[in-house]
Amino acid sequence: MALELTFVPALLVILVAAGLGRLLSKGLRQPVILGELLLGIILGNLIILSTTGPSAAEGPISGIAEIGILLLIFSTGLGLNFEEFKRLEVASSIVAVSGVILPFILGYLAAIYFGFSHLIATFVGISLVATSVGVKASILTELRMLRTRLGTLIMGAAVIDDVIGVVMMSIFITVVATGAIPLGEISLLIILTILFFLISLTAGIKLFRKLSEKITVGRESLLLLGLVTVLAFGLITTEIGLAAIIGAFIAGLVIGQTHFARGLREHISLIGGGFFIPIFFVWIGMNFDFGAFTTVGTFAAVLVIVAIIGKVVGCGLGAKASKFSDRESFAVGIAMMPRAGVELILIKLGLDHGIIGADIASAILVMVIITTLITPPSLWKALKMIKNKKEV
Amino acid sequence: MALELTFVPALLVILVAAGLGRLLSKGLRQPVILGELLLGIILGNLIILSTTGPSAAEGPISGIAEIGILLLIFSTGLGLNFEEFKRLEVASSIVAVSGVILPFILGYLAAIYFGFSHLIATFVGISLVATSVGVKASILTELRMLRTRLGTLIMGAAVIDDVIGVVMMSIFITVVATGAIPLGEISLLIILTILFFLISLTAGIKLFRKLSEKITVGRESLLLLGLVTVLAFGLITTEIGLAAIIGAFIAGLVIGQTHFARGLREHISLIGGGFFIPIFFVWIGMNFDFGAFTTVGTFAAVLVIVAIIGKVVGCGLGAKASKFSDRESFAVGIAMMPRAGVELILIKLGLDHGIIGADIASAILVMVIITTLITPPSLWKALKMIKNKKEV
Repeated sequence: MALELTFVPALLVILVAAGLGRLLSKGLRQPVILGELLLGIILGNLIILSTTGPSAAEGPISGIAEIGILLLIFSTGLGLNFEEFKRLEVASSIVAVSGVILPFILGYLAAIYFGFSHLIATFVGISLVATSVGVKASILTELRMLRTRLGTLIMGAAVIDDVIGVVMMSIFITVVATGAIPLGEISLLIILTILFFLISLTAGIKLFRKLSEKITVGRESLLLLGLVTVLAFGLITTEIGLAAIIGAFIAGLVIGQTHFARGLREHISLIGGGFFIPIFFVWIGMNFDFGAFTTVGTFAAVLVIVAIIGKVVGCGLGAKASKFSDRESFAVGIAMMPRAGVELILIKLGLDHGIIGADIASAILVMVIITTLITPPSLWKALKMIKNKKEV
Repeated sequence: MALELTFVPALLVILVAAGLGRLLSKGLRQPVILGELLLGIILGNLIILSTTGPSAAEGPISGIAEIGILLLIFSTGLGLNFEEFKRLEVASSIVAVSGVILPFILGYLAAIYFGFSHLIATFVGISLVATSVGVKASILTELRMLRTRLGTLIMGAAVIDDVIGVVMMSIFITVVATGAIPLGEISLLIILTILFFLISLTAGIKLFRKLSEKITVGRESLLLLGLVTVLAFGLITTEIGLAAIIGAFIAGLVIGQTHFARGLREHISLIGGGFFIPIFFVWIGMNFDFGAFTTVGTFAAVLVIVAIIGKVVGCGLGAKASKFSDRESFAVGIAMMPRAGVELILIKLGLDHGIIGADIASAILVMVIITTLITPPSLWKALKMIKNKKEV
């Protein structure tokens, strides 16, 4: 019960790094997230703070980082244009599916070419499927393009893509671990996912709308209510077998359709942007393990290229098929490049089950780091060109 | 790096408890903090969540609670009327000192009467010295009485009282541990404390004032800047040997004199009141160890009475001597009743050094729990009577 402030120094260092990262980004005219990632890398890999191994700082700070990603995705859902989101449902699905198929095939073929087994090749293919939602959510928000048609398409496709990635991963791991195709589990996961989306976006919206019409809450209580909702939705999706960020996104969509939306969007953007989200990105940078670069060779390089081409071409073609312009389709592809959340769980499961060795794990880790680092500047540029053209 | 959401369920439960605590308080027309403490007690002692022992939830949640108390005290410093604070410097010191001497003497005598040694009696006396700043800060803020003459006196006296408590504890523990009076260390602690206060409240204010005139920052960056400042000040006071909350308070006073004050006060009250501070009070309730009640007897009951009388009479007389009304002086005494932060560190040090046994530790713990629980309703009532009288 005594207030042991062991983690305050670590938190202070991370917050200062986040501040410096912002200044760096502004100086370089780059998105805030790039500076935060870079400062995180400097902290975690070059200077002082280590988050691997039992460290006093790790518990609390990884907890805060977790809230950070949930709040980022929640505020994205809150800020989204729901009508546009529904209109673009088909287009988002096309982009997501074509951005799943091509990277999977390319990854599979690359691994086969390098002499790996079909099992490992399938694993590598799956590792290229899911995109990282956080990076593009942060940049779209910073450029105020979340409510545009393009922003809506990107976020919609990203969430669908993430769901597909998680489902593929669950199926693959269960098949390898049990030797049988878990038809029951797969059906259950898919049914629960569909049910969750349907109930949330119909009855959920109605319920929260009524609540928002009936009660008036102060700003602190509103924030508390919002946080309870995002955590509860995150917990539900985790229990179903999806990622918590899917729940956070749906929570945002649901509350976004109520009278709570405006106040809560402001509050969450403040508390998220001024504390939790910078900590999340610095922490991600700190956890980039550059040790992975020392042991990998050509295969990692090929994997990076395949990861980029897979999404840029796959998602780009999907967007083009949905009548987006060349420039917009390219931006969609760029937005889908970064990998993070699902891939890292996949690596862990792959190692735990003895499916892959350190070589493949390192190669995928290198792919994750590079795609995450090149996305902010390139997406920033691609979106700015579109924005400037429209403003002219 | 994978987002293991093990602590999300625990956080969710605590936030729901905080929300229910608020509703309970409103229903009972009591301060918010009382409901939060009670719900925390229910969670920690009766139902599910345990924070003792290695729990997945403990690290992150105790970290968030730590930030909570720092933000509460920071926003108190931010909200204080600095001119009034300086005017009441002497009165605050009188209240603090008379509220230190009487409880110490009463505690000492009580222990001697019950047959304990002089060493233990001194320890018990010291355990009654420091007041808990959080409880009154929360209630004064909720009643919007922080900027009144009475609120300023209470906060000023509480901070001085806390400094005295920490200094006495450090001296006592060092004397017992080393067998010598650490004149060098004592002088250093006192010199550093005075230097810190002086530099912060002169050069510190000037520096931050200049900064606030020169740069304009967005709301997220302002929040980030405020958080960095409060953590840095907390770290400095911890390094000196004081409590981190002293640094947080001074940080608030300093920034309170700049152009940043207004925006930051709003931001901190939102992020604190809507997230960190409720978690702190629920967590405090969860950590109340009611096991202490099963082993103690008459001595604990006497200690509780002595703790209450010591502060109510000691501080009350001090306020009376400074020309506050009877009713106000009584409220000052009530406000000083709760003990928490310093006492709990003292118990731990006492046990570690073999100065006290489980009996004395339990008695002090019971005193901490009871004084903390009776203060919110009684202070609430005492302050409301003063407020209503003035408004008539």
